Amino acid sequence: MIRKYTFGVPLPTNAVIQDLPAEEGPLPFFGVTAGKDGSVSFTLSLHPEEALFGLGQAVRGMDKRGHRYESWNSDVFNHTEERPSLYGSHNFLVFFSPERLLGIYLDDPGKVVWDLGWEDYSRAVITSVSGNLDLYLIEENTLPAAARAFRQLTGRSYLPPRWAFGYIQSRWGYASEQEVRTVAQEHRKRHIPLDAVCLDIDYMVDFKNFTWKPDAFPDLARFSREMKEDGLRLVPIIDAGIKVEEGYGPYDSGKAGDCFCKKADGSDFVAAVWPGRCCFPDFLREDVRRWFGDLYRPLLEAGIEGFWNDMNEPALFYSDEGVAEAFALADRIRSGGVDYEAAWGLKDAFSGIANNPEDYRRFYHQVDGKPVRHDLVHNLYGAGMTRATAEGFRRFRPGERLLLFSRSSFIGAHRDGGIWQGDNFSWWSHLKLALQMLPGLNLCGFLFTGCDLGGFGCNVTGDLLQRFLQLGVFTPLMRNHSALHTREQEIYRFTNWESMRDTVSVRYALLPYLYSEFMKAALTDGMYFRPLAFDYPADRRAVRTQDQLMLGGDCMIAPVYEQNAAGRYVYLPEDMLMIRFRSAADYDLEPLAKGDHWISLSLGEFPLFVRKNHAVLLCSGGESSAALDDTRFTAVGQIETEGEYALYRDDGKTADPDPVGGLTKIQLVPDKAFARSIQC
Amino acid sequence: MIRKYTFGVPLPTNAVIQDLPAEEGPLPFFGVTAGKDGSVSFTLSLHPEEALFGLGQAVRGMDKRGHRYESWNSDVFNHTEERPSLYGSHNFLVFFSPERLLGIYLDDPGKVVWDLGWEDYSRAVITSVSGNLDLYLIEENTLPAAARAFRQLTGRSYLPPRWAFGYIQSRWGYASEQEVRTVAQEHRKRHIPLDAVCLDIDYMVDFKNFTWKPDAFPDLARFSREMKEDGLRLVPIIDAGIKVEEGYGPYDSGKAGDCFCKKADGSDFVAAVWPGRCCFPDFLREDVRRWFGDLYRPLLEAGIEGFWNDMNEPALFYSDEGVAEAFALADRIRSGGVDYEAAWGLKDAFSGIANNPEDYRRFYHQVDGKPVRHDLVHNLYGAGMTRATAEGFRRFRPGERLLLFSRSSFIGAHRDGGIWQGDNFSWWSHLKLALQMLPGLNLCGFLFTGCDLGGFGCNVTGDLLQRFLQLGVFTPLMRNHSALHTREQEIYRFTNWESMRDTVSVRYALLPYLYSEFMKAALTDGMYFRPLAFDYPADRRAVRTQDQLMLGGDCMIAPVYEQNAAGRYVYLPEDMLMIRFRSAADYDLEPLAKGDHWISLSLGEFPLFVRKNHAVLLCSGGESSAALDDTRFTAVGQIETEGEYALYRDDGKTADPDPVGGLTKIQLVPDKAFARSIQC
Repeated sequence: MIRKYTFGVPLPTNAVIQDLPAEEGPLPFFGVTAGKDGSVSFTLSLHPEEALFGLGQAVRGMDKRGHRYESWNSDVFNHTEERPSLYGSHNFLVFFSPERLLGIYLDDPGKVVWDLGWEDYSRAVITSVSGNLDLYLIEENTLPAAARAFRQLTGRSYLPPRWAFGYIQSRWGYASEQEVRTVAQEHRKRHIPLDAVCLDIDYMVDFKNFTWKPDAFPDLARFSREMKEDGLRLVPIIDAGIKVEEGYGPYDSGKAGDCFCKKADGSDFVAAVWPGRCCFPDFLREDVRRWFGDLYRPLLEAGIEGFWNDMNEPALFYSDEGVAEAFALADRIRSGGVDYEAAWGLKDAFSGIANNPEDYRRFYHQVDGKPVRHDLVHNLYGAGMTRATAEGFRRFRPGERLLLFSRSSFIGAHRDGGIWQGDNFSWWSHLKLALQMLPGLNLCGFLFTGCDLGGFGCNVTGDLLQRFLQLGVFTPLMRNHSALHTREQEIYRFTNWESMRDTVSVRYALLPYLYSEFMKAALTDGMYFRPLAFDYPADRRAVRTQDQLMLGGDCMIAPVYEQNAAGRYVYLPEDMLMIRFRSAADYDLEPLAKGDHWISLSLGEFPLFVRKNHAVLLCSGGESSAALDDTRFTAVGQIETEGEYALYRDDGKTADPDPVGGLTKIQLVPDKAFARSIQC
Repeated sequence: MIRKYTFGVPLPTNAVIQDLPAEEGPLPFFGVTAGKDGSVSFTLSLHPEEALFGLGQAVRGMDKRGHRYESWNSDVFNHTEERPSLYGSHNFLVFFSPERLLGIYLDDPGKVVWDLGWEDYSRAVITSVSGNLDLYLIEENTLPAAARAFRQLTGRSYLPPRWAFGYIQSRWGYASEQEVRTVAQEHRKRHIPLDAVCLDIDYMVDFKNFTWKPDAFPDLARFSREMKEDGLRLVPIIDAGIKVEEGYGPYDSGKAGDCFCKKADGSDFVAAVWPGRCCFPDFLREDVRRWFGDLYRPLLEAGIEGFWNDMNEPALFYSDEGVAEAFALADRIRSGGVDYEAAWGLKDAFSGIANNPEDYRRFYHQVDGKPVRHDLVHNLYGAGMTRATAEGFRRFRPGERLLLFSRSSFIGAHRDGGIWQGDNFSWWSHLKLALQMLPGLNLCGFLFTGCDLGGFGCNVTGDLLQRFLQLGVFTPLMRNHSALHTREQEIYRFTNWESMRDTVSVRYALLPYLYSEFMKAALTDGMYFRPLAFDYPADRRAVRTQDQLMLGGDCMIAPVYEQNAAGRYVYLPEDMLMIRFRSAADYDLEPLAKGDHWISLSLGEFPLFVRKNHAVLLCSGGESSAALDDTRFTAVGQIETEGEYALYRDDGKTADPDPVGGLTKIQLVPDKAFARSIQC
């Protein structure tokens, strides 16, 4: 059951697709407090054993209890555990205790503060800063049912093309087709599977969207064709800001269409990002989205089938106003004499020019023809960009699935694209963070996601990259990405590259199966990754398990995320068969009983746990997704009772695939060897 | 066996107390490479299973393999896992594999870089930047023997007074005796045990060392007496820098004695810290240490018996030169027009004025009458301050132990004082970091240590503070400390204060036992905390265990360090008796077999594991260390074979206690209840 309660005058967000009437009576369960500043707070007492699932892209564990989060899309380059916000705002949370199962969704495009047992461990206080929102209560009997109800409220998850499940190599810095070609060749010659290479901002002319360097990429269509012939796609980046430069097409056409966000005086708001001073498309307007979506056309025509949208919180390096204010403060400090507080003030002044909260109050959108100050709809910006892109795709490639993933997001954007988990670091703790963030993202509808494997910032080591890849084998988006000036991070740079190649080989052996599980989850409004609580709600140990994930209908993952570890502990909520992988062709099978186990896992090994009477399908592998044989498999499982597995297959690109017609039933029969050849 | 090898012309460090002759032959085991820049590197191939213990104060796990560390004492306010350096430099590392046990100590006061499998997991490369050092190789048959040999090379660990093992409350911000009195009273009236309150910089006049605010502390001697009558000590902070201010005694006397570090032109080097512009005592000179140590006398005469020395890396907020350079850069950028790189340049310029590497090259020490540029002896500075303080104590309180702990340190300083683990954050990951750092610190001689419980920076939650305290029960220094502007962190501020009080009560019940174990470790050149590898070297699981510690001769700790955890996994390398504590009076006893266990531990519970045929002694507890009855105990242990425990007791303050005379033998006899009353 879903009930809607309206507070104040909500702004449209495009998050919800069901038009429910608002309830008349008071909000049940929660205490409601109106603040003098217009805010409204919702308070709920928590059961001692209550676990809180959701909030999507956020730091900390799967259980969000015990921290204070803020929904405020932020370009934050340091995902430490006290961070209140990351790049997306996903205001859906499920309270789950032995006495209660209650979902709450705040459809609110402005800042929302979630005190989830921070001030007092026994109380949650959720505050909408503007006080204008639709609040939805979701009451269902099970956690998966609550997740499904929320998805039915907000719409089906984005479906990427099948090739996007291949391994993707990316790095900020690839600046020419020759460089990209070399990266591709280094993979191919070592037989490291690969399906795509991302182009970060260096492919553009002066970081200007929708341009590419004529010397470095003299014929993008030809190069794209060349890559495709080798089973590879190019995936260029597009940023949110449009450089202010007369004669630059997108600026001229945007200016002509009056497409940019405005200051209070009606002039275009300008702030700097990579290309320098930029204007920012008002993605809340349908005509602006149409204009912006059209800009992708030349790249599509050059054969590009995938994009990533970035800097769309939007990130603002500085505004003219912000720089002037910082210099004015510096002048005052300089003339007044520097003491330690002044010295810190100087640091703060110049550090604070980036993503300055003041800048987000300096500009306006048009909503239904009326100006709305940006901060009131801040969290919609990235979602608007994603929507513009997706709408463009639908116009130019109707019926086709293209790859799109974004940095910033809001609920609703899960229908139009995936997201990556943001600009993480080459930290072991970020490997764990990535693992723990996945089920919350799935719960909020973002099924196509994954982290920057190896870590974006900081310098990776070979062992850390390998452990990251062992998680990445299972994430829908499996991308190795790193920042300029960090240690080079392609697999082949490391002494343990052969073992990492073997890790990636497992992804390709599993790809048809993982694709099948992903598609079934997406097409039935289910989750691909789930906390154990969703499958074993009565098992209090399972409910509290924070570092293992259910994957699809058959299995569980438990990656190693500690340096120098010789293995890890795993809790099995039921009997499972462990596959200890070393490569697609080299693995052990070991049936394990429900309960606690210490699993030995050397650096090259990683486990997958298959539920009893379920199976996973391994194909013979390959070096690109198109090369995989999805008709012959080894079904691996401990089958004691005859059953079946429903394999989903399609052409990998139809926009509206048939959820039922794509299924092939595969019989599972008892087999002492736990592995059996299948043809289908 | 210890062998010494000399490279270049080492500067004196005061770290080593044995005068060994340098070996004539080449350095065994390591490849030696001289760099063109004067550096010298030592290279060693690593066994696949080799674990690396040591390096004292450093981030990451107990096994230091897989990262690149730098010995370079740093005021770093963000102990994230990529940090190369913290506040102290402890150049002792032990290589331990099935094929090798080898200790290496670099007696080098300058920067040392430790690539411990970072570039290549199979290789360690250790680089002395100056190339001037004594290198010691330690070869013994066991890890404890290697630790002991190193301690015999570098001297006995500092012995604090017994009251310093009590619970200590601290916060940056306590600014008057009334405020301190209130903190004390709030503990006493709730029966939260307490032995001391720290005074951070706010007790001083304008942050000037050796002053105290006349209005806020009108009669420090009286106030100190008042506190002591209530079983409480005051522990004021002293910083390294001396404010430049004529008429301020310490500056005038330091100036008169020419005690400060000099610039190349012979003038005093000046940089800002809390009081503003400061000079920096040249602690490498004996006469300067004597002058500085004398400055503590008025505080000692006011009844103070403990100090903490801070900001002694030394931290430099800025120098006049650094500020001028930053402004000059800002002016250049301003006139040239700001682009994104320039905007980042501005940020970096002003962020970089603190602890600027250039500043550490702007001043000089006198070593044997000759000027030595600071960066060449940088890592000695904090140790020099500690030495000055300790030498003063010995002059004014001969034969007595006073409390002293420092932020910055170097090996050698472990003879003169303890250290705290630095300015951590209220992060769960820092609770784990504190645990993992302890055995390395012990290995390097720093036995009296502990972290800022609850975390210094950021805002703590009640559950995090409780889990921190559960570690702190076992650390010799048990101090709750927090920064200005963070959430108030005294136990009584939180709804779960009663449960936290009960946690602290366990410390007091264990205090005589923990003191006994500490003193025995210190007096026999042993370790109080050890990695499991030290006790179970043949057990590869034990060797790889990174989140459990052996404590003293009888037991093992395994704190919970995850939020919302309902317990944790523990590996028992032998049969042990688990004490699951809720308070001094409320605990379960459960014998557990060697192997893996999942231990249920609610927020108020924490375990201690006692080896079979060993026991720990619990006294009846109390609210201050002086009030404890150390003649009647409950001996808790699973005794199957008669044995004995040697209890160390003394007056808690004699500087040179009798290691043997202080021991009382307590008979341990089989007892099915695992707990038995003892009188001694």
